[in-house]
Amino acid sequence: MVTSAFIAVDWGTTNRRAYVIEGGEIVAAERDDKGILSVPEGGFPAAVADLRARHGGLPMLLAGMVGSNRGWHDAGYVAAPAGIAELAAGLVSPVEGVAIVPGVCRDRNGRQDVMRGEEVQLLGAVAAGLAPAEALLCQPGTHAKWAVMRGGALADFTTAMTGEMFAMLKAHSLIGSEMTGEVDADAEFRKGVEASADGDLLAALFGVRAASVLGARAPGTAAAYVSGLLLGTDCRARIKPGETVYLLADGLLARLYSAAISIAGGEAVVVDSHAAFIAGITRIRDMTP
Amino acid sequence: MVTSAFIAVDWGTTNRRAYVIEGGEIVAAERDDKGILSVPEGGFPAAVADLRARHGGLPMLLAGMVGSNRGWHDAGYVAAPAGIAELAAGLVSPVEGVAIVPGVCRDRNGRQDVMRGEEVQLLGAVAAGLAPAEALLCQPGTHAKWAVMRGGALADFTTAMTGEMFAMLKAHSLIGSEMTGEVDADAEFRKGVEASADGDLLAALFGVRAASVLGARAPGTAAAYVSGLLLGTDCRARIKPGETVYLLADGLLARLYSAAISIAGGEAVVVDSHAAFIAGITRIRDMTP
Repeated sequence: MVTSAFIAVDWGTTNRRAYVIEGGEIVAAERDDKGILSVPEGGFPAAVADLRARHGGLPMLLAGMVGSNRGWHDAGYVAAPAGIAELAAGLVSPVEGVAIVPGVCRDRNGRQDVMRGEEVQLLGAVAAGLAPAEALLCQPGTHAKWAVMRGGALADFTTAMTGEMFAMLKAHSLIGSEMTGEVDADAEFRKGVEASADGDLLAALFGVRAASVLGARAPGTAAAYVSGLLLGTDCRARIKPGETVYLLADGLLARLYSAAISIAGGEAVVVDSHAAFIAGITRIRDMTP
Repeated sequence: MVTSAFIAVDWGTTNRRAYVIEGGEIVAAERDDKGILSVPEGGFPAAVADLRARHGGLPMLLAGMVGSNRGWHDAGYVAAPAGIAELAAGLVSPVEGVAIVPGVCRDRNGRQDVMRGEEVQLLGAVAAGLAPAEALLCQPGTHAKWAVMRGGALADFTTAMTGEMFAMLKAHSLIGSEMTGEVDADAEFRKGVEASADGDLLAALFGVRAASVLGARAPGTAAAYVSGLLLGTDCRARIKPGETVYLLADGLLARLYSAAISIAGGEAVVVDSHAAFIAGITRIRDMTP
């Protein structure tokens, strides 16, 4: 199907990306830092109207935290397993011509999880053939999302507080002042991933302090090591030996998770997350009633 | 041996306990909040002299953070395995008649750990017969210490950042604002300990947020649940099925760790940590050259 032109917006907490999509192709794009936290109370209708007017008043499809209870309008959650069709059926339209994609939740066997925004990329990656219909996908970040895809649908998922834990340890813990130096997929990072094999994160974190006290750690290496500990802990909890992980990331996060996945016994395939978003949001638009 | 009278001081970061001990018995005791952080720069000689004069100018034996590089005088560390004799041989005497007990370190197979102050209680517990010569001891707190005793000596130990992690999550994380309610060894705490069985702490922590978003958690229950998650994670990393843990704690911490140890498959025996300190410091004094 060739979709008629529309505006797709990936509207997160701190950033916003808008695309004009016509026939499945991007014909205009912009990115700014007008995430939902920057919008003043009551300011969403004007912000949405302004963005829409700037792109010819086309129909508009919003995804991400704009659809949370802290955003413009709570678009709720559809329950996993969920595919493109379920997201399209769950669209919420606060004003004529503008719709918001719902998030996805899971609540089974006493374990709850939620996502909002990532579902478009995850389903888009499979829809665009960037990942197979049966696959494990990972979208790392402050709250890393790990999605199990079955028959092209988002069957189940787990969120890990990996990035937030790193930031919190660095800013507020006993070992924070030692977490200096650049983080990259270097020898110290790898050491941290390897050390995570014993599954004893609470002890490994104190060990960073002990190593400094005993002169067993070179200055400027602890940040990379702790990053390795955390990403290693995250990956080992989710990857079976030999499993392929489709990684929706680029730059540093792609390097770090690729290394951690490999050391944890898996194999990472990096997927273009922007292309995945465009593919996902276009297919949701195609299915919009 | 009947020890001649001396002053024993357990001088920590925020609190200080002093005892006059004669013939192994406490004949005077005081407790205040003059931990090392409250002592002004250069103020230790006066603080020590003042305390000593108040108790008849007896010989004085100090243990705890007063012997760290942030305290009065760095008393260093003796390497595990270490017993009472090694601590006595490692005493550091900054002024005539006053000695500081060294800490204990371990640095083998790439894992480093340190303790300072706990060693007196741990070795004292065994010396006083409060715990057997071959045992697993736990002293919970901001940094929980788990000690493996062999032949009455401190053979090895592990420190877990358990208490600090709880405080940090409550004060600084996404789930902090939800961590309300009293913490005790109640049903929610037990649920947290049980949930820790899958060894996936980073996901379980985000799950607290998801449960709130989905209305699956009663308000005022998250603090106890997170405490259970953390203590469960700590205990499961250290206890073999059926193992007895000698717990140097009282009050809330004793209740929480006793419950967590039990759910994790062990059995807790609560030991009087003050009696253990007195026993340990008296025996170090007995061996002082």
